[in-house]
Amino acid sequence: MGDSTETLDPADWDPLRVLARRIVDDAIDYTKGVRDQPVWRDMPPEVRAHFRSPAPQAGKPLEEVYDELVVNMLPFPMGNIHPRFWMWYMGASNFTGALGDFLAAILGSNLGGGDHAAAEIDKQVVNWLKEMMGYPAEASGTLVSGGSMANLIGLTVARNRMSGIDLRELGLAALKAPMRFYGSDQLHSCHRIALEALGLGNRALCRVPSDPGCRMDIAALRAAIAEDRARGINPACVIATAGTVNTGSLDDLEAIADLCAEEGLWLHVDGCIGALLAIAPESRRLVRGIARADSIALDPHKWLHAPFEVGCVLVRDAQLHHGTFTVTPEYLENAPRGIASGAWLHDLGLQTSRGFRALKVWMALKEHGVTKFGRLIEQDLAHARYLTERIEAMPDLKICFPTSINIVCFRYDPGGLPESVLKKLNTEIMVRMQETGVAAVSDTTVRGRHCLRAAINNHRTAREDLDILVDEVARHGTRLVTGIIREQC
Amino acid sequence: MGDSTETLDPADWDPLRVLARRIVDDAIDYTKGVRDQPVWRDMPPEVRAHFRSPAPQAGKPLEEVYDELVVNMLPFPMGNIHPRFWMWYMGASNFTGALGDFLAAILGSNLGGGDHAAAEIDKQVVNWLKEMMGYPAEASGTLVSGGSMANLIGLTVARNRMSGIDLRELGLAALKAPMRFYGSDQLHSCHRIALEALGLGNRALCRVPSDPGCRMDIAALRAAIAEDRARGINPACVIATAGTVNTGSLDDLEAIADLCAEEGLWLHVDGCIGALLAIAPESRRLVRGIARADSIALDPHKWLHAPFEVGCVLVRDAQLHHGTFTVTPEYLENAPRGIASGAWLHDLGLQTSRGFRALKVWMALKEHGVTKFGRLIEQDLAHARYLTERIEAMPDLKICFPTSINIVCFRYDPGGLPESVLKKLNTEIMVRMQETGVAAVSDTTVRGRHCLRAAINNHRTAREDLDILVDEVARHGTRLVTGIIREQC
Ligand SMILES: Cc1ncc(COP(=O)(O)O)c(C=O)c1O
Ligand SMILES: Cc1ncc(COP(=O)(O)O)c(C=O)c1O
Repeated sequence: MGDSTETLDPADWDPLRVLARRIVDDAIDYTKGVRDQPVWRDMPPEVRAHFRSPAPQAGKPLEEVYDELVVNMLPFPMGNIHPRFWMWYMGASNFTGALGDFLAAILGSNLGGGDHAAAEIDKQVVNWLKEMMGYPAEASGTLVSGGSMANLIGLTVARNRMSGIDLRELGLAALKAPMRFYGSDQLHSCHRIALEALGLGNRALCRVPSDPGCRMDIAALRAAIAEDRARGINPACVIATAGTVNTGSLDDLEAIADLCAEEGLWLHVDGCIGALLAIAPESRRLVRGIARADSIALDPHKWLHAPFEVGCVLVRDAQLHHGTFTVTPEYLENAPRGIASGAWLHDLGLQTSRGFRALKVWMALKEHGVTKFGRLIEQDLAHARYLTERIEAMPDLKICFPTSINIVCFRYDPGGLPESVLKKLNTEIMVRMQETGVAAVSDTTVRGRHCLRAAINNHRTAREDLDILVDEVARHGTRLVTGIIREQC
Repeated sequence: MGDSTETLDPADWDPLRVLARRIVDDAIDYTKGVRDQPVWRDMPPEVRAHFRSPAPQAGKPLEEVYDELVVNMLPFPMGNIHPRFWMWYMGASNFTGALGDFLAAILGSNLGGGDHAAAEIDKQVVNWLKEMMGYPAEASGTLVSGGSMANLIGLTVARNRMSGIDLRELGLAALKAPMRFYGSDQLHSCHRIALEALGLGNRALCRVPSDPGCRMDIAALRAAIAEDRARGINPACVIATAGTVNTGSLDDLEAIADLCAEEGLWLHVDGCIGALLAIAPESRRLVRGIARADSIALDPHKWLHAPFEVGCVLVRDAQLHHGTFTVTPEYLENAPRGIASGAWLHDLGLQTSRGFRALKVWMALKEHGVTKFGRLIEQDLAHARYLTERIEAMPDLKICFPTSINIVCFRYDPGGLPESVLKKLNTEIMVRMQETGVAAVSDTTVRGRHCLRAAINNHRTAREDLDILVDEVARHGTRLVTGIIREQC
């Protein structure tokens, strides 16, 4: 254009083309070579200092900005794309997904709604996930920032529905009896945050004891519901977990669904970890009954390895889902034709503008097919069984909890050390493996015992990697114990 | 590795490298050539049908997946990266931001916390935004999915703080008096959704009348607060809007801050549209007082043109912010050193896993500098003034509401037509401009009058584009009116 308009576009696209190709080439090399890099390394002070500078008033060429990232960012990742990262619980990303996020940003579309291709893809991915869960086609669903938001949305629909009043209008102040939600004592912390945000309060969340397998104790659940009813509390919703964060335990979904049907309660399944077992050819029986839930939270950025962020909530009764969030202000009225003639996708959650997170999932599912993702899930389970066997065969390593899916809880325990020393010892083993860049596991406390925890949710992990883990834990453990003994003498 | 491990990585990276370069090249051409494309076009039935197929069980080469997108997605965008898209209120994305999202996905890091470079960048971007707002360095903040979530987080902190009880534990049931939040009748719909989600209910939201300039009427606000107090309702929080979605009107932040100080109320500023005026060299006076807020929602995916999604909430009292959301379950305990020794960034909102949305903002701010973004904001304001003048000079076009920032409300109104016909006429003009791919504006109803609405938040818009808009509205309008008259004869 002839006028003096400024823009964020470059005046000349050719140098940007050269740089963008270099970035893509580097990214290929980075991903391809990740196995040869440390899982993690500590940032030196000058790198940390680099990220403490004030807001840049003047600009500089994008090439220089990228060079900063090459020096200060790329060598210092969290580590979760590395084959020996098994910390916390997350996916390992994938290159196709990165291309998906790139294309989504190029297209720039807002998935708040409207009639355009991205909106079709968004709806299609939700439909695919329903299919993968065995959920009815008439059910509703939406892609959200992650599992926590997926749970929050499901619990919001449950709250409004089970309140029996016009909760949107009146608020909780109008409730006649307090509502109660039930989850096991292994429930993920996001549920507490959700119930607090929803105004129900932590007190509204009943933690039902879990059995020795860390599964919700159904008899205890039944008793808690009866006790609440007797005290004038209104039992509203059971949150069953398909794959707990500590141990990967799976609540008995069929039994809980039966109980919810009997008692007239909403069944929400937190399937952030385990829902996708539904596509695993041999292990899908582990989540039998999941499709009976009134709402399901699942997390494509975990077992589909989509780059962050993408979670999904499915709600069986589409009308209830819409009814919980729909508003139509005057500036968002539908038009008879044109861009605004599409559905309002934001009517299914708490966002107005929505990113095109569907694309990375769509592309990876098209490329690999559902069956390959199913096989990759089985592979993670097989890896966990293998690691468990290796640990059981080592004299100084102990499995702390039976492995049910892809989470292995174990510790270095040569015998004769008190719990407090074992905790210090294992924490130090964990940290040293990270500091040497060899492997990343996390720690937790299960039924009072501190342990290391390998969550094998990683499509790059090979058996050899697990051998390395076992050897390193034993090696650090032995060395540290020798040190402790020397100190004490 | 020697075993039979399957992975999402390709066996051979070279064809992927070729494809990735092609995708980047295409993306450059797409962005560079966007002006020569229609803003929007309707999807033919075969394209819609393409997106209705069931979940793919088997995979296929990524190249073929991309080819599908070239045919069925890229030609059918929402349109908001086009220079003549001024619909709703969003940014126009930028190529650097797309590279940022790509790199974030390559790195794969989870911004839930931890000690790694991405976490430093996440914190740095929040610090930069505080600086840009003139907010104190000790304040807190977090990047979220968008403005709606930023508002929700701010309002959650406000609710918990102003309840005067341990709301996290007890829930709203324990409140002695109902709480009230105040916003003008021009408030964005996300606040209603937020208060409903928070369990306060729509009833807790008092809509204070706005003055003829669509600014909150301060006397009416004062009266509403007094009346509530007299009725035993607990006034908690005023939501001031810096840039309303309908007309871009700016509430008087200084006056509202004074009143909040006097009355002991929380001041939350919804600055999703206007907060970034704070960096505009000439127009920053429009948001004078914004730094006095207890919390501010702003939206880098609007006036910083970051690709979706990225919003930001700032909270003056960091401790209150943390205190609203922190939990430390056993599987998320900090370690003395290593990956888990960093801060938990998820403790500032409702997500656990968090994407690396900071990077796209960081890169664009480094490349262009804050001052250029400030100039681009002034440019949008100048464009809006120019469009307003052009419309005022046209006999059959009318400005419906004084232009205060970058939103222009107008309509085709040759005189003598009743309101209902004008609404139909202008809706049809709007839709025809979209269908012919020439320009995208939205419509709304302001103070009872239906109008077209151009939100000029677009770094690609040039004056010529606004000339085209004016001419097209007049042309379609004249033609349609001729048709109406002919029909009536
Ligand atoms: C059982 C369970 N539920 C919910 C979540 C939260 O998911 P997200 O981190 O995607 O918010 C997690 C995270 O690991 C989880 O393990
Ligand atoms: C004034 C105002 N507040 C909040 C929002 C919601 O922002 P987002 O769409 O990023 O959720 C908008 C969206 O346009 C807005 O204009």
